[in-house]
Amino acid sequence: MTAEIISVGTELLLGQITDTHAPTMARILAECGIGCQRRTTVGDNLVRLTSTIRESLNRADVVVLIGGLGPTMDDLTRDGIAAALDEKLVREQSYVDELKEWFEKRGIPFSDNNARQGDRPESGRFIDNPNGTAPGLLVQKDGKTVIALPGPKGEFDPMAKGVVREFLERLGGGVIHSRVLRVIGIGESYVETLLADLMQSDEPTVAPYAHTGEVHLRLTAHGKTKEEAEAKLEPVHAEIARRLGPNLFGTDDTTLEQSVVERLRAKGHTIGTAESMTGGQLASRFTNVPGSSEVFRGGIVAYHVDVKIGCLEVPRELLDEVGPVSSEVAERMALGAKDVLKVDWALSVTGNAGPASDIDKKPVGLVYIALAGPDGVEVREEKYRGVREDIQRRTAQTALGWLREKLG
Amino acid sequence: MTAEIISVGTELLLGQITDTHAPTMARILAECGIGCQRRTTVGDNLVRLTSTIRESLNRADVVVLIGGLGPTMDDLTRDGIAAALDEKLVREQSYVDELKEWFEKRGIPFSDNNARQGDRPESGRFIDNPNGTAPGLLVQKDGKTVIALPGPKGEFDPMAKGVVREFLERLGGGVIHSRVLRVIGIGESYVETLLADLMQSDEPTVAPYAHTGEVHLRLTAHGKTKEEAEAKLEPVHAEIARRLGPNLFGTDDTTLEQSVVERLRAKGHTIGTAESMTGGQLASRFTNVPGSSEVFRGGIVAYHVDVKIGCLEVPRELLDEVGPVSSEVAERMALGAKDVLKVDWALSVTGNAGPASDIDKKPVGLVYIALAGPDGVEVREEKYRGVREDIQRRTAQTALGWLREKLG
Repeated sequence: MTAEIISVGTELLLGQITDTHAPTMARILAECGIGCQRRTTVGDNLVRLTSTIRESLNRADVVVLIGGLGPTMDDLTRDGIAAALDEKLVREQSYVDELKEWFEKRGIPFSDNNARQGDRPESGRFIDNPNGTAPGLLVQKDGKTVIALPGPKGEFDPMAKGVVREFLERLGGGVIHSRVLRVIGIGESYVETLLADLMQSDEPTVAPYAHTGEVHLRLTAHGKTKEEAEAKLEPVHAEIARRLGPNLFGTDDTTLEQSVVERLRAKGHTIGTAESMTGGQLASRFTNVPGSSEVFRGGIVAYHVDVKIGCLEVPRELLDEVGPVSSEVAERMALGAKDVLKVDWALSVTGNAGPASDIDKKPVGLVYIALAGPDGVEVREEKYRGVREDIQRRTAQTALGWLREKLG
Repeated sequence: MTAEIISVGTELLLGQITDTHAPTMARILAECGIGCQRRTTVGDNLVRLTSTIRESLNRADVVVLIGGLGPTMDDLTRDGIAAALDEKLVREQSYVDELKEWFEKRGIPFSDNNARQGDRPESGRFIDNPNGTAPGLLVQKDGKTVIALPGPKGEFDPMAKGVVREFLERLGGGVIHSRVLRVIGIGESYVETLLADLMQSDEPTVAPYAHTGEVHLRLTAHGKTKEEAEAKLEPVHAEIARRLGPNLFGTDDTTLEQSVVERLRAKGHTIGTAESMTGGQLASRFTNVPGSSEVFRGGIVAYHVDVKIGCLEVPRELLDEVGPVSSEVAERMALGAKDVLKVDWALSVTGNAGPASDIDKKPVGLVYIALAGPDGVEVREEKYRGVREDIQRRTAQTALGWLREKLG
């Protein structure tokens, strides 16, 4: 069984935004045992969209379209599918009524073009979209399957990874199952050295990918069922866990912050943050974990020196003497946060993320991270290269990895 | 003049790596006045690659291929182009000799498959690659142009942005220039209603795109020079500015937070934040703006009630009585932050972003935003749908948009 993916949108075609949905969908198809053989990007042009869909349907069993399902005049995916299948669009009045009600409840005027979201090709049906007003489409006709999903990420992701994936698994009749092992604290080439023999294997395959401050290992195996494929992964996963030890921090979508929150919860400990350079990003990483409120109590973003003094009890004389980007200030920030937020652990960050190196005359990329805990306080000095976002992200990553290590 | 881009590589096709080269090339083509009408991704398969090239050549004047020029057996772009043009590959012996010398100098053994990088279609010629061993290819035949560039970023970028761009500028004989107008506070369909007549225009074209909490309008015009194209954009930009008024907050890469920081700076005012549900994201948006330290003094992430009480002076009795997700607590948080951080403006957020609706028994998506300023404090109640990240992002977006409006 073969598939093709069509991404729809002039913005995508002209490279004004990068297409991350098509790779997601390609991975899902692969994992369902359906070989994706071509991906095409076309603009918001009905003639070209229609002929692209027609060509894909001539070659492949499954065609997945992404984008172009919104309410505006240049949302043409519904029209393109109908034209390619020589069908008419019919309006599902009950859905339009639902939409109207939804708009009314929110006091938003319902313009007529919104009703287009209730259109579907005659032989198609809607795929429920719990996070938006444009439903997806599913058409099965003459042995071919057409699926269309909306472009906004918050709508596409849950649909693609949920009901659409389940549907494709049944359609594909077999699975290619992958598991991602997430590694921190060692680089890609060292990981490769440690796992060289395992990476030669054909089944399961083991492939490393470098990310900012993390290495991911993708283990992949085939099977008639997910369980059969998973059984092939187990022994290799166990061997990698043995070799990498505590550097292996999670699998699949487990984030570093989740793994930290989990360890804190297990100990019944609480955590707080004091940030200068990362400006709330570290607190944000904690609060992105659902249920983190059990362990994360709060944070102080102390950008201005007066906030370091007023909210974190850093002595003004110390700031005058050594400057805000210093080991001493990082230490006092962590101790201050531990005290003020009444937590077991406090992480603090001060540094210069650039672009200018004028703060405190310290070089761009110089960072101090302090960790105050039940047994006292420690400080690390780090030097990072890269743009502002990279430096901030690497800093948060190092801080979280360090805390994880300390939690044992 | 029209173009198509073909990205070659199974890794790309299956979504194991994200294609950033095709968007780069699409932008270059657009800026050279050559309309890119389709992008295709195919795997390392000669039959499918050849037919893809043939189809693209039937439709477009220019076909740019990216990747598949290396020395290994699955590098098939040379073979595909020759087959699609019904030509033979010829080996450029002088280039192979150069390559051999290059390998010898570095003490690397020269394997025979490296010689394949000296192959070109009969009517083609090489494009010099200063950063790698695989040259690019240029074929001009029967009014069509085929360009092939290597995939490694350090090789692709300098070639694409250098000699290839110069070549395409001469070929295209003009530029297509775009400008993005960024809109907040009104939805895509209402924007479309307000600008319906302008969106019918062929030159400049006006196209809306919805993002979380923002609508972007892309204005595009052709011209012999960038200046000529820009002159066509001006009157339409001015008319849109007139119709949308303060809802239009910036152009091109201006973020909402930049526009807010700019207004604060102009007034000489400072800002601070008090966040519960957004957990540091709002502070982070401010501190992501380079130079924001002039106006952003700091923030309190008050996740636990004790932090709301201890750091933001919210009375415990009030929290017991109305609960943390309430208009009253939002108001006290903003006033507390204004006081503690010693700022002119303080934004506070409290709400329930889910996934569970157990906090305070308030429904997921219910949010209170308060803004304390020189003239007192105001509170807004909002109800959002979507997943946790969407609710957090929409909340931050609304808070920033509101502050911007108040700053006038």
